[in-house]
Amino acid sequence: MKVTLQRVAPGDIEARSMELITAELGDRTFPAEQAPIVKRVIHTTADFDYADNLVFTAGAVEAGLCAIRSGCVIVTDTQMARSGINKTVLGKFGGEVLCFMSDPDVAQEAKARRVTRATVSMERAAALDRPLILALGNAPTALVRACELMEAGKLRPALVIGVPVGFVNVVESKELLLTMPGEHIVARGRKGGSNVAAAICNALLYTASHNERE
Amino acid sequence: MKVTLQRVAPGDIEARSMELITAELGDRTFPAEQAPIVKRVIHTTADFDYADNLVFTAGAVEAGLCAIRSGCVIVTDTQMARSGINKTVLGKFGGEVLCFMSDPDVAQEAKARRVTRATVSMERAAALDRPLILALGNAPTALVRACELMEAGKLRPALVIGVPVGFVNVVESKELLLTMPGEHIVARGRKGGSNVAAAICNALLYTASHNERE
Repeated sequence: MKVTLQRVAPGDIEARSMELITAELGDRTFPAEQAPIVKRVIHTTADFDYADNLVFTAGAVEAGLCAIRSGCVIVTDTQMARSGINKTVLGKFGGEVLCFMSDPDVAQEAKARRVTRATVSMERAAALDRPLILALGNAPTALVRACELMEAGKLRPALVIGVPVGFVNVVESKELLLTMPGEHIVARGRKGGSNVAAAICNALLYTASHNERE
Repeated sequence: MKVTLQRVAPGDIEARSMELITAELGDRTFPAEQAPIVKRVIHTTADFDYADNLVFTAGAVEAGLCAIRSGCVIVTDTQMARSGINKTVLGKFGGEVLCFMSDPDVAQEAKARRVTRATVSMERAAALDRPLILALGNAPTALVRACELMEAGKLRPALVIGVPVGFVNVVESKELLLTMPGEHIVARGRKGGSNVAAAICNALLYTASHNERE
């Protein structure tokens, strides 16, 4: 072996990573309820830009925790985000994750209407009759359609995690969300992703689960 | 609507994104076979650091394409990476994606041996008798174990995509891979992730599929 590895037991790797992130953030402080989210996103990406990019409305974290505790549905805009969310913890609260992107009828309707599948997915989310978190890490068209539906009073998520990534209408879709009433967590700028959406959901889930135990 | 959106048809969003990435890369040039991979990773992360981070051995892309064309197995170290890989295109070549991380017997064995599930997963991969691509976007312990098994002659992947993300032994695991013979694509430094691993696989799949059609 030509490289020296740190000896860290499997169960301690995450805690050690969080210590290193905290140390590297130095004097930067975050509101107590936001810190676990910011740190988990940095843990997922190794990208400290998220210490500056992430924007929270005042009640965003509490709204997310409350929705989780009431057994909410988390709707994602990719199977990847769905896959990354801790369904064991979510399931303990009676919640589940749904993603409509691969549903054949969604693809068919999107094609017929010349819109993205993500657009149609948000309409499916609006038809759900349960507490809802939207976790959007990919498609700005999903976020734009969600904003339209919220404005029309047809979609009332407890929390919107608006972290699409990319180059076409991504920045704009997130700025649009920031003009809306309601509770949001947004990664301003181009960055974000399915991994970031899942990390934010998991940070909320672990906080909810931790508080539960206390 | 308080934000002006660009009017881009759903089918054109990706092409437009790639144009913007190419424009922003300016004078930066990449070997022809590597450019689609670098650009797809930037497309997935909106992070231009990958223009500098990604390191390719001389035959890496050709080895990956050859493995895909021969119906290889891609083994990932997260369900998220597995979820993000285009299985329709891979399936056309007779390939499939496997991830052993959630297998109950892997968890059991890892616990008994006090190693990570990722370590045991690589041993499962070594037991496969088919052309193999390892796509590791999460666990440095997977990458370290893969290097040990390669050194012992027990694992012979056509290509290792070594892009774990994080803070504990991540940099070291990737530097270790770079000392090994064989073909690799590595994201040097702390950055990487399941999304990056999937993006590299998809770039290879689309190149293989495109060349097929010509």
